[in-house]
Amino acid sequence: MTTTDETQAARPAGRPRSARAEKAIIEATLDLISESSGLGELSIEAIAARAGVGKTTIYRRWSNKEDLLVDALAALKAPLPALAGRSLREDLVACAEVFLQEARNARSRCVMNIAMNETERHPRLVQRIHQATIAPRRAVLTALLQRGIATGELRADLDVPVSIASLIGTVVWYVRGFGPDQEDLPEGTAERVIDHLLVGMSPR
Amino acid sequence: MTTTDETQAARPAGRPRSARAEKAIIEATLDLISESSGLGELSIEAIAARAGVGKTTIYRRWSNKEDLLVDALAALKAPLPALAGRSLREDLVACAEVFLQEARNARSRCVMNIAMNETERHPRLVQRIHQATIAPRRAVLTALLQRGIATGELRADLDVPVSIASLIGTVVWYVRGFGPDQEDLPEGTAERVIDHLLVGMSPR
Repeated sequence: MTTTDETQAARPAGRPRSARAEKAIIEATLDLISESSGLGELSIEAIAARAGVGKTTIYRRWSNKEDLLVDALAALKAPLPALAGRSLREDLVACAEVFLQEARNARSRCVMNIAMNETERHPRLVQRIHQATIAPRRAVLTALLQRGIATGELRADLDVPVSIASLIGTVVWYVRGFGPDQEDLPEGTAERVIDHLLVGMSPR
Repeated sequence: MTTTDETQAARPAGRPRSARAEKAIIEATLDLISESSGLGELSIEAIAARAGVGKTTIYRRWSNKEDLLVDALAALKAPLPALAGRSLREDLVACAEVFLQEARNARSRCVMNIAMNETERHPRLVQRIHQATIAPRRAVLTALLQRGIATGELRADLDVPVSIASLIGTVVWYVRGFGPDQEDLPEGTAERVIDHLLVGMSPR
């Protein structure tokens, strides 16, 4: 999504139409991934047809299919919220709310699963998707946990990589444990998970 | 897989061939699910062709496609190991090793993801798969954690449902965090995750 600004600078009058087309292309790509059994079967033709744009509109923005796929997957991951920085618990709950909403989104889960299952067939592409979607969040959580260690809100010997896995994985698995009844997920789930995990992460 | 014993009782001489055919049918079903974009597109014809058996061989064992799908998904989930019962930590590590190996199995992840994404289109089938795959493990873990509370190895006010999500989810997400490089997952990962989580689950 980085070239949106370039488009804006180059053709200010055309930007709204361009932004709409870009959104339609991203959505069409995500829909087609979710209906596919793998990234390899997607074509620029099919994406253009689904988005209702010409192939040239796609190629004006993305020089190849891999770049489009990486941007589409990245668009699934809303940036983590601006962290208030008042307390570690508050910031962890804000992050957990984002993970929780994504875990409830069937298309988001489906598309990420399909992409991450392409490790063998498209290792370089999966590596790029990982860098564009998972790595930035891990970086935010790492910085947040290191801040907590510095302030003394977390224990000094905290296992940061395992803590990150526990923060995301517990939310996702708790949502998943509701099986087909995810609408029944109660209010306060993010707080409940974070409060559980913080018992082990806090200094004794 | 429950009727294997019935087959054995009814036709002892035919059992080995029958067991081989059953395994071929289950494997063919799992392969076809992993290559599909949903459970709806699977047909008994395609499964029979992939397994190299006749449709009647399938219908002798399963009266409909749903029953076969439930058994196939259940076959992905090895029973949790017999728990030694000497210490909670030892038993939790044994369970975590099973989750870890499954998280590394691309086909297993892929097939479960496809099945669990069918909530909207096939709610009853997903509910049956959930009952056959996820529910039994949750029952084992629930009993294990309740034993730990009873022995005093776990704190009395433990949040059992969230603890279960943390045990499975942390292992899965830690494996997933290795991205395309899961071969690099070090020895001792199950112990490391369990020791991290036990800090918060143990009595103060």
